[in-house]
Amino acid sequence: MQSISLAERTNALKQSDIRAVTQQVNAVDGINLGQGICDLPTPEPIRERTRQAVTDDQSIYSHYAGIAPLRQAILQKAQSYNDLPATDIDEVMVSVGSTGAFVTAAMALLEAGDEVILFEPFYGYHRNILELTGATIRYVPLSGPGDTLDTEALERAINENTKAVIVTTPVNPSGKVWARHELETLLDLMQQHDLVAITDEIYEYMLYDDHEHVSLASLPGAYERTITLSGFSKSYNVTGWRMGYAVAPPHLIEKMGLLNDLFYICAPRPLQHGLLAALEDLGDEYIAQMQSDYAARRQMLCETLEAIGFDVPWPEGAYYVLADFAPLQATHDGFENDKAACQTLVQDAHVASVTGRSFYQHPEDGRTKLRFCFAKELPILKQACTQLRTALA
Amino acid sequence: MQSISLAERTNALKQSDIRAVTQQVNAVDGINLGQGICDLPTPEPIRERTRQAVTDDQSIYSHYAGIAPLRQAILQKAQSYNDLPATDIDEVMVSVGSTGAFVTAAMALLEAGDEVILFEPFYGYHRNILELTGATIRYVPLSGPGDTLDTEALERAINENTKAVIVTTPVNPSGKVWARHELETLLDLMQQHDLVAITDEIYEYMLYDDHEHVSLASLPGAYERTITLSGFSKSYNVTGWRMGYAVAPPHLIEKMGLLNDLFYICAPRPLQHGLLAALEDLGDEYIAQMQSDYAARRQMLCETLEAIGFDVPWPEGAYYVLADFAPLQATHDGFENDKAACQTLVQDAHVASVTGRSFYQHPEDGRTKLRFCFAKELPILKQACTQLRTALA
Repeated sequence: MQSISLAERTNALKQSDIRAVTQQVNAVDGINLGQGICDLPTPEPIRERTRQAVTDDQSIYSHYAGIAPLRQAILQKAQSYNDLPATDIDEVMVSVGSTGAFVTAAMALLEAGDEVILFEPFYGYHRNILELTGATIRYVPLSGPGDTLDTEALERAINENTKAVIVTTPVNPSGKVWARHELETLLDLMQQHDLVAITDEIYEYMLYDDHEHVSLASLPGAYERTITLSGFSKSYNVTGWRMGYAVAPPHLIEKMGLLNDLFYICAPRPLQHGLLAALEDLGDEYIAQMQSDYAARRQMLCETLEAIGFDVPWPEGAYYVLADFAPLQATHDGFENDKAACQTLVQDAHVASVTGRSFYQHPEDGRTKLRFCFAKELPILKQACTQLRTALA
Repeated sequence: MQSISLAERTNALKQSDIRAVTQQVNAVDGINLGQGICDLPTPEPIRERTRQAVTDDQSIYSHYAGIAPLRQAILQKAQSYNDLPATDIDEVMVSVGSTGAFVTAAMALLEAGDEVILFEPFYGYHRNILELTGATIRYVPLSGPGDTLDTEALERAINENTKAVIVTTPVNPSGKVWARHELETLLDLMQQHDLVAITDEIYEYMLYDDHEHVSLASLPGAYERTITLSGFSKSYNVTGWRMGYAVAPPHLIEKMGLLNDLFYICAPRPLQHGLLAALEDLGDEYIAQMQSDYAARRQMLCETLEAIGFDVPWPEGAYYVLADFAPLQATHDGFENDKAACQTLVQDAHVASVTGRSFYQHPEDGRTKLRFCFAKELPILKQACTQLRTALA
């Protein structure tokens, strides 16, 4: 049986370093600020409606695009929060996580011969899923936070084969929030070169210091060439429920729906009913409290990292810090590169992070960086900060 | 925006006729025996454990292959019921429905240049997903129920590019249950030509007249070249929960797991905990009751179809009848072909079925057939039978 060869698309697939670090930190009973696992409780109204849906036997397949009331609620949210010009629930598809929506969007748009633009640092799943489509990825540097779009670099990356561009805002891992004028510049180029955007806005509610979330699709002329993705995982602490959605004009979302049908059949039915509570029962007050809670966590972690010697670009959004430990290299052993630094923090502070190389095409671009996630209960995050300060005192 | 072209893989995708018929039968408040929607209640132990998991905040990502206790329970079931030589939970992957497992298996094995054998009549999702891999499908007729494997036809379909064969048992739509000696013949050919099998055994518990379910992977020498798929949807009435699984040797399932991670992240977490009840709390008695209930439904529907003039090959397994209305053509209008017959039954009997063409490469092979699903509450099925008898009296 050594003779069985798998499809070529599986060659590049390997278990990510993130899971290995998770295992190591678990082995020392440490604190995992690596994986974007949000361990906060799921809001009770969502749990209550989900239990009721299970009791009511909401168990059979839904339409592949989701139950109508949830699509309606998402449509209203897309109109009111994202300012999208969507008008019909046919423009809304409930998906198996925002990842599921990304898979169907990428598979609907891209194939061998196409090129797609991915800004880096990037989210690894975006890169890996794009590779499965067969398209060629062009990487464009996008540092941040701050006003960092390099229009010339972006233009250089576009050619006649370019079909799509991936926009994440707020950005995982950098914490950059795309400014309106940056999105306008991008849209100009998209219109000149007839490109489609897939936007991942899963962290749209995690915003700091009065930064504003702008959906690309809300700009005049953008909606018709944009697939807007979001989901419930991060804002409502249900990462493992696999519930996301896409909003896009009919000519883009129709085929996504048919791919969704093939790959997923539908999003998990009882959880669809439960998450109606997120949009119907949890309003502005819930979001405001969440933002305030995350702001406190951001401050605690960023101050700690600065105190122990990291260079810390405070995130404008999302719940990660991509911090630079270069200043520590002169004074501490074990910080030769991102892998070593990650190991050092697991061993000495019992805190897991993610190596910078995970977010770049070329590992050397991330060699002095680590990503930390602050979506943790405050006492746990506080304990992690204490351990970091003690280990690097 | 007319200029945006989608990926070629989307060209063949279209909304299935099945959904259109569903809409028509709903419009007349009729009974849907078309789609394989099982509207029976979810067993209370599963619902109870699921509600508890939601209360206990089992909400974060699991390992991409599922929570360990569920993988352990599936391993034990695979050993005891399916007689598989699997020994470790690393050989078990929990998936987003058995469809999710089929996607990862097909994507791991097949690509352009490969050939894959699909017996017909086939399950449409198998065909459509296989097409997305880029592989070429070779169709081999497999009628049934009964002892119908045509070894010569199968051998003729195999060539040097053949990589895999899809085995569904019991078969949707025909109701055939593969006999042990048929599987042995298939295995011989697989070994001669170094093929891998993907088996879809989602209906493994729906068996009639003492037919035995044999898993291909239980045959000596088969496990190392077989990916065995099943799930909870059909046996536990949770079609919309999207919970299935795969069992396969490490060299096959490892890459499936990484694809599962990319496409699905993990199966919905609280539902994983809930379905532990299926394997731990619902034992042989539950299965026996289910079989007896389905046997009664099969009898009611098959007798009705025979009474109104169909030629009915009584299924050996699963919960469908693929019946032939050719005898009706001489005496009744509206039965010119499968599409007309399906329309006639919706209009005259307010009963939906699925056109025979949905299960064949060439529509004419299904032109005198309709598939009926009997996974309905008995009073509803009885009403459907009454309507059929009245309409065709």
